[in-house]
Amino acid sequence: MKTIPVIENILSANDRLALANRNLLDTHGVFSINLMASPGAGKTSLVENTVRELAKDFRVAVIDGDIATSIDADRAAAAGAQALQINTGGDCHLDAVMLVDALQKIDLSKVDLLIVENVGNLVCPANFKLGTHKNILVASIPEGDDKPYKYPGIYRGVDALVVNKIDLLPYVPFRMDYFTRGVEILNPELLSFPMSCKTQEGMIPWYNWIRENIRLARPAV
Amino acid sequence: MKTIPVIENILSANDRLALANRNLLDTHGVFSINLMASPGAGKTSLVENTVRELAKDFRVAVIDGDIATSIDADRAAAAGAQALQINTGGDCHLDAVMLVDALQKIDLSKVDLLIVENVGNLVCPANFKLGTHKNILVASIPEGDDKPYKYPGIYRGVDALVVNKIDLLPYVPFRMDYFTRGVEILNPELLSFPMSCKTQEGMIPWYNWIRENIRLARPAV
Repeated sequence: MKTIPVIENILSANDRLALANRNLLDTHGVFSINLMASPGAGKTSLVENTVRELAKDFRVAVIDGDIATSIDADRAAAAGAQALQINTGGDCHLDAVMLVDALQKIDLSKVDLLIVENVGNLVCPANFKLGTHKNILVASIPEGDDKPYKYPGIYRGVDALVVNKIDLLPYVPFRMDYFTRGVEILNPELLSFPMSCKTQEGMIPWYNWIRENIRLARPAV
Repeated sequence: MKTIPVIENILSANDRLALANRNLLDTHGVFSINLMASPGAGKTSLVENTVRELAKDFRVAVIDGDIATSIDADRAAAAGAQALQINTGGDCHLDAVMLVDALQKIDLSKVDLLIVENVGNLVCPANFKLGTHKNILVASIPEGDDKPYKYPGIYRGVDALVVNKIDLLPYVPFRMDYFTRGVEILNPELLSFPMSCKTQEGMIPWYNWIRENIRLARPAV
């Protein structure tokens, strides 16, 4: 009797391409992050600040996903990054194949940090791996404290959480303990960076974490 | 020679069901609105306030769409509405068939105003008509002034725009003229309601507009 081996991990087309993206990035020693958030949580402000700070020591590239316009890529380029815009033409998320195409247009041998800014959406981007090393959710205080409960998928799947616009805490109803409890149920011990891209409060730990990861991603010499 | 008539309006399955929903609502003289917005723009606060005010004179029902939880429907019910939760189980928008099912669970002969609160998402809900009389976008000040430019689809397709959280204008960078210009390019003469659900500023014109529409939708007696 013949035994037919069970192929346990038939990866979806998207996941296979995500894996190829990851391998390509690893080959070049590029540390890569995928920023996901609601529209207006402050992804682009986070990109601007991060590029401005990290470009002092590293070579930074930014891939910006949007339905329309190149507003975000323009802002990233002005801050000092090699910037590329992907207009999804209506699609509500980036996927691995869009990143495959974008990576071909970047000279990865000249990049230490790649920041991918996803389309503003708390639902769909969570379902499409890109191949980046870290998936990061940018929450923001004025969005409200119930978002982990209402959008569990994206909170469950990320490696780090930025909680932006903490400067607005005095002006909006936001119960930090309720929010934190929701996050902990879905993603215990999730790394969290409370900050304000406007006032710069709380940004140093974020920069240090990115720096450390860039160093870890570099090929040993 | 025979002439084959061109069927110009082959409606998609969703659009046909949306039309059926509209007919059902019209039969019962129910005025209906579909609230769309980013997560955290304040749809549920708007629903709470509107129910509390309008329930003085009218019978209000609320259908709440969410990925998970019944937080929003609970809030609408507490404010005085007949409330029904649709959990999309991961889907990033409501569609007409979900509304068909929900409408069967409501006694429409006892409803004057139906508020549908869509899933928090600035992209996908714009592509699915539900059959409601008015599609309404809830924008919010802390989301930023570039949203019309970056999410043109949803701004183009709505009948009215609520601009919520105007109480935060002193604390965030938001150029009202840039925002307004973006809206006008996409949707000239769009009816706009700047307001704060927190301070109640600017809510009277909104209530009056809803009242007027409820009266127009009632069958002549």
